[in-house]
Amino acid sequence: MTDPEELAAKVREGELRIHELEEHADHDTAAEARRLYVERETGTDLESIGDYTFPAERAEPNIENMIGAAQIPMGIVGPVDVNGEETGASGGAADGEHYLPLATTEGALLASVNRGLGVIRTAGGADARVTKNGMTRAPVFRVKGVAEAAETVEWVNDNFDALAEAAESTTSHGELLDVEPYVVGDSVYLRFAYDTKDAMGMNMATIATGEACEIVESETPASLVALSGNLCSDKKPAAINAVEGRGRSVTADVLIPGELVEERLHTTADAIAEANTRKNLTGSAKAGSLGFNAHAANVVAAAFLATGQDEAQVVEAANTITTMDARQREDGTTDLYASVSLASLEVGTVGGGTKLPTQSEALEILGLRGGGEPAGSNADALAEIIAVGALAGELSLLAALASRHLASAHEDLGR
Amino acid sequence: MTDPEELAAKVREGELRIHELEEHADHDTAAEARRLYVERETGTDLESIGDYTFPAERAEPNIENMIGAAQIPMGIVGPVDVNGEETGASGGAADGEHYLPLATTEGALLASVNRGLGVIRTAGGADARVTKNGMTRAPVFRVKGVAEAAETVEWVNDNFDALAEAAESTTSHGELLDVEPYVVGDSVYLRFAYDTKDAMGMNMATIATGEACEIVESETPASLVALSGNLCSDKKPAAINAVEGRGRSVTADVLIPGELVEERLHTTADAIAEANTRKNLTGSAKAGSLGFNAHAANVVAAAFLATGQDEAQVVEAANTITTMDARQREDGTTDLYASVSLASLEVGTVGGGTKLPTQSEALEILGLRGGGEPAGSNADALAEIIAVGALAGELSLLAALASRHLASAHEDLGR
Amino acid sequence: MTDPEELAAKVREGELRIHELEEHADHDTAAEARRLYVERETGTDLESIGDYTFPAERAEPNIENMIGAAQIPMGIVGPVDVNGEETGASGGAADGEHYLPLATTEGALLASVNRGLGVIRTAGGADARVTKNGMTRAPVFRVKGVAEAAETVEWVNDNFDALAEAAESTTSHGELLDVEPYVVGDSVYLRFAYDTKDAMGMNMATIATGEACEIVESETPASLVALSGNLCSDKKPAAINAVEGRGRSVTADVLIPGELVEERLHTTADAIAEANTRKNLTGSAKAGSLGFNAHAANVVAAAFLATGQDEAQVVEAANTITTMDARQREDGTTDLYASVSLASLEVGTVGGGTKLPTQSEALEILGLRGGGEPAGSNADALAEIIAVGALAGELSLLAALASRHLASAHEDLGR
Amino acid sequence: MTDPEELAAKVREGELRIHELEEHADHDTAAEARRLYVERETGTDLESIGDYTFPAERAEPNIENMIGAAQIPMGIVGPVDVNGEETGASGGAADGEHYLPLATTEGALLASVNRGLGVIRTAGGADARVTKNGMTRAPVFRVKGVAEAAETVEWVNDNFDALAEAAESTTSHGELLDVEPYVVGDSVYLRFAYDTKDAMGMNMATIATGEACEIVESETPASLVALSGNLCSDKKPAAINAVEGRGRSVTADVLIPGELVEERLHTTADAIAEANTRKNLTGSAKAGSLGFNAHAANVVAAAFLATGQDEAQVVEAANTITTMDARQREDGTTDLYASVSLASLEVGTVGGGTKLPTQSEALEILGLRGGGEPAGSNADALAEIIAVGALAGELSLLAALASRHLASAHEDLGR
Repeated sequence: MTDPEELAAKVREGELRIHELEEHADHDTAAEARRLYVERETGTDLESIGDYTFPAERAEPNIENMIGAAQIPMGIVGPVDVNGEETGASGGAADGEHYLPLATTEGALLASVNRGLGVIRTAGGADARVTKNGMTRAPVFRVKGVAEAAETVEWVNDNFDALAEAAESTTSHGELLDVEPYVVGDSVYLRFAYDTKDAMGMNMATIATGEACEIVESETPASLVALSGNLCSDKKPAAINAVEGRGRSVTADVLIPGELVEERLHTTADAIAEANTRKNLTGSAKAGSLGFNAHAANVVAAAFLATGQDEAQVVEAANTITTMDARQREDGTTDLYASVSLASLEVGTVGGGTKLPTQSEALEILGLRGGGEPAGSNADALAEIIAVGALAGELSLLAALASRHLASAHEDLGR
Repeated sequence: MTDPEELAAKVREGELRIHELEEHADHDTAAEARRLYVERETGTDLESIGDYTFPAERAEPNIENMIGAAQIPMGIVGPVDVNGEETGASGGAADGEHYLPLATTEGALLASVNRGLGVIRTAGGADARVTKNGMTRAPVFRVKGVAEAAETVEWVNDNFDALAEAAESTTSHGELLDVEPYVVGDSVYLRFAYDTKDAMGMNMATIATGEACEIVESETPASLVALSGNLCSDKKPAAINAVEGRGRSVTADVLIPGELVEERLHTTADAIAEANTRKNLTGSAKAGSLGFNAHAANVVAAAFLATGQDEAQVVEAANTITTMDARQREDGTTDLYASVSLASLEVGTVGGGTKLPTQSEALEILGLRGGGEPAGSNADALAEIIAVGALAGELSLLAALASRHLASAHEDLGR
Repeated sequence: MTDPEELAAKVREGELRIHELEEHADHDTAAEARRLYVERETGTDLESIGDYTFPAERAEPNIENMIGAAQIPMGIVGPVDVNGEETGASGGAADGEHYLPLATTEGALLASVNRGLGVIRTAGGADARVTKNGMTRAPVFRVKGVAEAAETVEWVNDNFDALAEAAESTTSHGELLDVEPYVVGDSVYLRFAYDTKDAMGMNMATIATGEACEIVESETPASLVALSGNLCSDKKPAAINAVEGRGRSVTADVLIPGELVEERLHTTADAIAEANTRKNLTGSAKAGSLGFNAHAANVVAAAFLATGQDEAQVVEAANTITTMDARQREDGTTDLYASVSLASLEVGTVGGGTKLPTQSEALEILGLRGGGEPAGSNADALAEIIAVGALAGELSLLAALASRHLASAHEDLGR
Repeated sequence: MTDPEELAAKVREGELRIHELEEHADHDTAAEARRLYVERETGTDLESIGDYTFPAERAEPNIENMIGAAQIPMGIVGPVDVNGEETGASGGAADGEHYLPLATTEGALLASVNRGLGVIRTAGGADARVTKNGMTRAPVFRVKGVAEAAETVEWVNDNFDALAEAAESTTSHGELLDVEPYVVGDSVYLRFAYDTKDAMGMNMATIATGEACEIVESETPASLVALSGNLCSDKKPAAINAVEGRGRSVTADVLIPGELVEERLHTTADAIAEANTRKNLTGSAKAGSLGFNAHAANVVAAAFLATGQDEAQVVEAANTITTMDARQREDGTTDLYASVSLASLEVGTVGGGTKLPTQSEALEILGLRGGGEPAGSNADALAEIIAVGALAGELSLLAALASRHLASAHEDLGR
């Protein structure tokens, strides 16, 4: 039985449930039947949603109850110019020029980022570095009380190797880096951090941690309550990520000659620095914010969509600090130093949505599809390129604000 | 000249810049030319990205440098059962059953939400209410110092009507609700809040605030530095949004009979409440979080993608508190009370990405495409339905954790 | 029976309980008996603690189980030079020169603040303004769910006058300024804000709110769970106070000529601004802090101790933002603009510990003992003077850091 | 010349500066002269302030410009019953019964804490454990940019031993435990954590870190900007302390039989748990707080004052989470589990204000004056006893709220 109309009818009549369609037809037919059912139920025409152009079974690990696809406009910006080659261990993973694909519905975003990238290129490119890397998972355990909590913490601090062995037995790539215990009354939280190489790694971290939890339960008085106790912290705005990082902690910067600031951004380093300080530093301070930036999430969200990242992890990516400073040269010229520091950027080039057709092509544009050599280098490079994209977005927006404000400052003189 | 190959060649030879293509060809040809150029430059084949199925000019206000589209799998969950009819002014905007389209690449998400929605339906549906509404924009002004700051604050507090008149002169729908001043040394921030009806409203708020700023500048010693001073706060994780709200503050809840918890979720209200308290409350507390939930951002991100919302505003949506409590009935049965409270959910049914073909169809599935009657009711209803979706996701995940933990609790007895 | 030895013996034998001694003797004798008892029980000699020099009954409203007093060294700094006279409604409450008493055990604190105050005096004095004033109390109510919550919020928004009438019926001075509702599932929080004039006002606010709660309970479905629901938020580090203020929001600033920075602080405006930005702004940002300052709490704690404020409210006082900027004069000289903004400084000149002998004398040194004319002006002035003290402390410490760093910068040149 | 009148006259005539008096007379005379001067200048009588009863030179390391002392009423609560003996390494430092001295001006505080302590004693005492210990100091360094930052971080991660050697060369007791690097653009922060044994240790940590910074500067491209870069974070409300701890992380708990809750606290475990959840957990969550407690700062501030701790560090102590849960016994009775977890309690029994006469006696009451055996055990024990005091305060206040709410719940039935 592979007639979508018949299948839709069966759902309508209650003979089949909406999520059972794939058991009775191929994925595309199932999606069509579901679409037909929904169209009738809601009196709609879902032609565009049904007009997806990939085989539905390629989306199987990524969705259930599929009816089609959302099509989000994708464009490119760049090239993104990154200077990564410099040194050995502390060098960057990304190097050279890359076009960055961005998918968004926010008009003017790509134009703005592109303007910033042009200035960065003329300035000789940006530096970018991953300074910390660790995907985390933090189960919560129940103990009787404080005495058992102390006992558990002590055991964990003394038995990292046993935990690592258990955790790493579940994965061929992942590596346990650290286990940090936290106590709140009769709850013990253990924050496991992993190097998950080119995978974003949340699943890997979850499975590995699950295995390690069994050791904890058998060797200590602690009982597992939940594999995630929110000290991970996934898809929530949390200081623990902003401070300690999650996924990649990545920083990018550029020094822009004063002349270039004036010619291309129509303002001065001092004016940009002022806008940044009042808005991104003191403004965010007053707002009780964990994000000291203008719109880093915009660039990250669009890059995530294009390259098949987990869209909800834009939340953590917003834990970004932007700095803009005027630096005096010996000849008196004032250059602009600009940086972005993303504390918790969770990216991968394998797994998740990265295998879907358009997403996989987007990673190819960057030359970062699949695992890197050495392992982890592709995800590092993706993090660095996104960081430079975010830097360009910050530069462009701050410059726009500052040039407007310069204008009004000039008017002030007339008052 | 409309041959994409020729156009691509001109770009390659530096005769045309990549963003100028739309000046020389229709939008689809321009996108093709750009794609050709990128394919050559990067040695890739962008067939899937080029396989979008809408006229490129429909995406014009949403993107620049278009090369095609990202296709994100879309499915449906539901029906979402919302009880909104109850009362007059404090009633809900959404009522009855709605299928909710979700676009995501995170496997198991729709299945999980669907399970939760099934339980909610059997329990008689969820209640949902928008309890606050206001899109904000907060410019920052420079003053000489504290004395001028106090003078400015005083003027603003005394002249709301003048500010409202200026702000509202720029919009046919928007309404200025409040202007709240904040002082940090020689910076004055004014947080303008608007009722933007069915539009998410950030552009409306920005334009209106720009107009009001001119009055502030002419009547007080303050000079505008930036139209956004980050007390808005847009796309950053900020306490000001978690506390005071931005866009819609929306809450949804359901009371689930104990029998249903056992039959369908294979656990108990007590076990779910325990997992929620240790994870979402004390865990998030210890993490220094503004998000006291399990994965509300997952549901919001997927609903945002499907319905054309601003993807980067998932950041604010994560400011969500989930509560789960065991409530004793008179007969001794323990029911589960579950709620989610999203402090800052920014949604619209007009403008932004809502007009794109697949997104617009997704809004039609919900019966919420375009402006509501009365104005604002469609966006209210969308907020309420997304909130119930988030509630279902929380329920399902917490129940999964609790049932697993029950199992392990049982094992404990054997030790 | 007034022999302290006998009383102590009765406590030892279990005939009297330790808190019942005041029922059997005057306060000083009771304290002596208690001291005797503790000395025997713990094998100690509490001569110094017993050497307090005020009548014990003067401390009656402030302590129970008294055994004596802690003696904390008190010194003075100043004069604090405040320019408050300027304008009408937006003028400052404090004006002229004041010696500020500080009690502390932290060596070097007074010397440091004094140095800063000297520079401020030479620079012509500081400006200081209270830009917001409101003591808050936020009860939490239980409702059945979201629908009742919305109903309650609606009623509160519509019935401010009834709430004000009830609240103000309990106080001759206090004035209800605002009631802000917040909903989390089946909890409704109402944040009441009062002008409590010269009293710090927490008791006044609590009593008035208690009265208003009865109206809420009788007119809405809400039931009171706790008179404080932590959105007040008293003695906890909370963004709601840092953003919206509690008690006085007070700001102080000064413009210091470049020459003075060099002569007296041995550094430059640029160096101080750099230290402030890296430490107080980006450092605090990275720390997930609500306090963007160097050590404002030091000055506040010492002033609170000296003047009889509530010592635990130093917590909220730490919600302070310090800014330091280099301002270019037309002649090219660079001056230093320095400010502190304390969002939530809770002070009073009547009630609480202000009536105790040493504390009351300390307020007299400031000329601010008792109620002001007009009501509230003494507490405003106290807030402003403490703010200038904090500004001096920030200046002095930042300058010390910057001069050291200049030194090391000089050394750098030699490398 | 030791006549205070003459000295005061010299100050008045500008021949001596106010801080120079100790150069011309003994400390008591200098204080008297200063007092005389201030009395004349301000038209006040500072008899009580001058009525301190310790030799002024004992306060020399603690204050400058001394005029006398603040006398703060001190009482005692207790005994505090702590069960610490249990096990070896994970046992508690405090054991048995201790009277806890508290100095405060907040009426009803001691009575309330005492009530809680009585219940704890009857319940068999509380458990308390220090689960983490580390006094931190975090200098900020300037680098040219991201590349140098990465290089610096790498060096630091590879050279802990060299840093420890340098740091520990400055102290006979302190031990470097950890150095954690954080990067924000061209700023590198290194958070040094020390075991400072029985000293609160901030000075020790500062001096040791200063020495280690020289190595960093000589071996990496980094230049020191400030010895404290606010990631320490001292006397500011900062998530880094709430999450990672500073000083002692200490937890205390107690299990109170249901019968005792009813008899002594006149309420039920369920009612207390409800009040705690709505107020301390969801209320604080909604407030954007780092403090999930009722009034822990009250107890800490009073204990700090009595025992000579740094009063401004009450700020960090407020980073406390209180949990209250109803635990079902097999016979159906519901007991109350109550805990407090203070993430960052900074205490010492040597140094600072601990040597002053009344403060030193207060430590003797506790049996914790001076260094412990082994080193650090006295400060551990002080932390544990204060934690139990805070637990008692939470219990008592929550019970008061809950019993009131029970009353109103009872009334509800009549409606």
